Amino acid sequence: MSNMDPRGEKMKSLKRFQPDWREDVPAADSYRSIFKYDPNKFKHPSTGWYEMFKSEFAMTDADFQERQPGGDERVVLDRKPRLSESQVNAFRRIVGEENVATDDYSRVKFSHGKSLDEALALRVGKVGRVPDLAVHPRNKEEIAEIVKYCNAERIPIITYGAGSGVVLGMRASEGGIALVLRTHMNKVLSISDLNQTAVVQPGIIGPDYEAALNDAPRLFGSTRSYTCGYFPQSFELASVGGWIATLGSGQASTYYGDACDIVLSQEVVTPVGEIKTKDIPGTATGPKVNDILKGSEGTYGILVEATMKIFRYMPENTQRFSFMFPSWESTVDAAREIMQGEFGLPAVLRISDPEETEIGLKLKLKGFTGSILDGLLRRRGFIPMQRCLCIGTVEGEEGYAKHVRKMASRIARSLGGMSLTGYATRQWEHGRYSDVHMREDLLDYSIIIDTLETGVTWENLHRLHGGVRSFVKRRPGTICMTHASHFYPQGTNLYFIFMMRPKDAEEFFRFREGVVDRMVEHGGSISHHHGIGTMFAPWMEPHLGREQMEVLRALKKHFDPRNIMNPGGVLDLDPREEAD
Amino acid sequence: MSNMDPRGEKMKSLKRFQPDWREDVPAADSYRSIFKYDPNKFKHPSTGWYEMFKSEFAMTDADFQERQPGGDERVVLDRKPRLSESQVNAFRRIVGEENVATDDYSRVKFSHGKSLDEALALRVGKVGRVPDLAVHPRNKEEIAEIVKYCNAERIPIITYGAGSGVVLGMRASEGGIALVLRTHMNKVLSISDLNQTAVVQPGIIGPDYEAALNDAPRLFGSTRSYTCGYFPQSFELASVGGWIATLGSGQASTYYGDACDIVLSQEVVTPVGEIKTKDIPGTATGPKVNDILKGSEGTYGILVEATMKIFRYMPENTQRFSFMFPSWESTVDAAREIMQGEFGLPAVLRISDPEETEIGLKLKLKGFTGSILDGLLRRRGFIPMQRCLCIGTVEGEEGYAKHVRKMASRIARSLGGMSLTGYATRQWEHGRYSDVHMREDLLDYSIIIDTLETGVTWENLHRLHGGVRSFVKRRPGTICMTHASHFYPQGTNLYFIFMMRPKDAEEFFRFREGVVDRMVEHGGSISHHHGIGTMFAPWMEPHLGREQMEVLRALKKHFDPRNIMNPGGVLDLDPREEAD
Repeated sequence: MSNMDPRGEKMKSLKRFQPDWREDVPAADSYRSIFKYDPNKFKHPSTGWYEMFKSEFAMTDADFQERQPGGDERVVLDRKPRLSESQVNAFRRIVGEENVATDDYSRVKFSHGKSLDEALALRVGKVGRVPDLAVHPRNKEEIAEIVKYCNAERIPIITYGAGSGVVLGMRASEGGIALVLRTHMNKVLSISDLNQTAVVQPGIIGPDYEAALNDAPRLFGSTRSYTCGYFPQSFELASVGGWIATLGSGQASTYYGDACDIVLSQEVVTPVGEIKTKDIPGTATGPKVNDILKGSEGTYGILVEATMKIFRYMPENTQRFSFMFPSWESTVDAAREIMQGEFGLPAVLRISDPEETEIGLKLKLKGFTGSILDGLLRRRGFIPMQRCLCIGTVEGEEGYAKHVRKMASRIARSLGGMSLTGYATRQWEHGRYSDVHMREDLLDYSIIIDTLETGVTWENLHRLHGGVRSFVKRRPGTICMTHASHFYPQGTNLYFIFMMRPKDAEEFFRFREGVVDRMVEHGGSISHHHGIGTMFAPWMEPHLGREQMEVLRALKKHFDPRNIMNPGGVLDLDPREEAD
Repeated sequence: MSNMDPRGEKMKSLKRFQPDWREDVPAADSYRSIFKYDPNKFKHPSTGWYEMFKSEFAMTDADFQERQPGGDERVVLDRKPRLSESQVNAFRRIVGEENVATDDYSRVKFSHGKSLDEALALRVGKVGRVPDLAVHPRNKEEIAEIVKYCNAERIPIITYGAGSGVVLGMRASEGGIALVLRTHMNKVLSISDLNQTAVVQPGIIGPDYEAALNDAPRLFGSTRSYTCGYFPQSFELASVGGWIATLGSGQASTYYGDACDIVLSQEVVTPVGEIKTKDIPGTATGPKVNDILKGSEGTYGILVEATMKIFRYMPENTQRFSFMFPSWESTVDAAREIMQGEFGLPAVLRISDPEETEIGLKLKLKGFTGSILDGLLRRRGFIPMQRCLCIGTVEGEEGYAKHVRKMASRIARSLGGMSLTGYATRQWEHGRYSDVHMREDLLDYSIIIDTLETGVTWENLHRLHGGVRSFVKRRPGTICMTHASHFYPQGTNLYFIFMMRPKDAEEFFRFREGVVDRMVEHGGSISHHHGIGTMFAPWMEPHLGREQMEVLRALKKHFDPRNIMNPGGVLDLDPREEAD
């Protein structure tokens, strides 16, 4: 990859032209307001990024003169709802007139997530299947009534938490309703200091939940402040219900646990009745229904309340470390040793492969390329496109955090790592939630950025990473940055970020399919924490096998005999004869 | 409880008579050889215990002159098998002639566990439903063939791991086969140093598994020694498959995790096919079938291979602590603070309530009563029947273990605890696996010892403990020792040990039912780690509710449509119309 070499001179001379990155808040009724992550947030590519795009994708300034369609039009569907007026009135009776929306905008907004596919389609005003109306329930009792009514009338329900999903998880059959949890069901209901738990409604998003926990003494009279321990990149966009329903995982989950680990109990409304699992920390009473419900992505029922494990909020104890390693192999070895060393666990642990490291150094660490530090690293054998960055934080009690950092650093050094202190970690922290907003700028000029991620054992990691990269690199002009960011003693995830300028969207989708095939082929899962939706549903059976799929389908048939819960292919659970 | 006061003088004068505790290995073909935990192991009540029995149960030396029936007779069933000769031959063809046993002894042995109920029945030669023959498969392929054949012929299968269960988990319908895993399927197949996993067969028992892991460098060429991290009191008796199938928990599980936490993947043979879940440490591919299978107690299928998480073996790092607390409340507070403090976790943590503490001090710490230490404790406010013992160990890396011990000790002191150094912990370690063997001596003289256990949140703990004790203490002459030994940030278990001399077994069974009712009433689960079997099946629906039970039944119907897998009431999963 010679074109990744530093070219400071060239960059300087080209600095003159800068694309006119958009910074206008999308019109409130526009397609753009739906697919843009956050209407009010922007993050433009730096000059460095811009130069890289041109160089990697054989583009010139001229390619950045004219934008692609931006989805700025007003949403117009012009489709008659299938529900009868009397059915619509039934919902109005349950939730109140003001909480039933039949307008075109609501029908589109509350059935779309944040996937690349949806952004591309909505930019040109292309809308697939949509529900007939959006219903905004005020409490769990109303949800129980709605599900009962929908089951009796065979009306499909898609559940909209906060709409941050990226796997096409809300592709309902045409018609039915979108049940929107974000509007009213967004509160922390209570906190137990003794149990260290919080009872929360599913539509609350990360920042609101975390703020309530941090402020627990004032809001709930708690004896202390708490943290949720769950910080995915989508933290500002995703709902707690979504975390659980899709088996999510946050950037500090290596320590605090994945979403599935931090749910003590749940209340779920299904077509065959309501299930409230027990608040019991450990039990031997048969297969755990609390676990069975997690990850069902709205196909079994609607999570209406969760009792979450919470943690003591002690940000003053956070320790940071970062290291440069001479190779990907030594970086992986260090991460594995940290996870298996039994001295405690880091909260954030994140290792970048050579390509991600190099792009990060060049584009995120201002002034790094050609700097004294860069020279020092090279002389010490940390060679571009071989060297790898590792960053980490440790949380918890002060002595614990210090000890884990000390041990992690000792391991890093013993494997050839050079300490960069906490500097690189702080750099990463600044952009951890905002980098996603760059996507719209890129799509404005036909550059695609998308991600795929997989769970994998240590034994399969290098094979999978190599297998995906060799597939990807057969296509010229394809950037592939990889990191691992969620660790277990038995393995980790691999998170691939792809950037390219395909001739059309179809080319990219075919490319993405090829990558998923490679992941399955090399022993990875088809999703580590994004979930399945309809996007990865075609790989469910090839990945898990027919026998496991039949278990999930048997449960589907039990909970939802009439297939009204998030139908349309999610998790590949539609009854075989009715699947489309 | 004035009769719990020290009475050293009285004890001395009574030392003369000692019951003639049995120390003969039961005859190989006897009932006693089946219900006795280990034919070769004995642990007789000390003089202290003996004196307490007499005092508590209003017994005299005369009551210990003549023994109850001991089950020493040869097992004779005299029941015709229901299977036809051609069916029996089919099994012989699959596993080889020598691995099919039709004799009476095998039919009884391989359908009985180690519950009190079974011991009482077998002592008088009373045998309930038994299978027609015992089949000892040599590998998983044979098990697949057997299940296929049994499903076609509608022949019930009960799975016998190592026979240590205490919840009547193998009460088959009359007839069918017992599938014995202990005989041949008892090996560690491979170890992965990278993944830190071991592939094991289900019939291996704890000591063999642990020995293989400790000796991994020699046996498997591993880079290091490992430990399984799982040490239930039944360690020497229970099989790894049993740990998983019953959702077991070991004495060090507070650190290493419960059985359900240490299974990376499983291979399970069901009537509708074989399921091999994936070796993937974290995944978001829908509800996890790996979890669904755990705890199914043989009713969904037969676990034929498991990939277990293993841990680095570093016994040299073990730290021990023990404390006396002034009250049960302060002891519970200390344990909760240790679990929520986020400085790492102890491996063993164990707190005893006042009654267990007092009996332990008097009977297990030789010479304690009336000693200088006893006097010192009393003067400092550690009053008998108020004071409580807490013991603990920390494992893992050296600095981690020291830090956790330091923090735990700091918490203990801040809550009024007085350090007893590691002394009490070491005392407990000596008897941790052997105390169970005392049961036969007691039953020989009509004294019953039995246990019940529950999982409970911190919020419900005192209410549940008090509720059970007030029920128990309404019956004069009933010893009730309680400890908590498996901890979570959200709660713990409570483990009740009952001793009494009921007028008959029925009185005890009714008493036990009353305790379980209290556990359910006060928000505990009906089992923390023993499982359900048929013993607690009647409480499944009252405890979990109809909706959760219907989920488990839907799975049962899927996996085992003809109800051949461990039928007869286990987990209350028999089809409703066919239940007996």
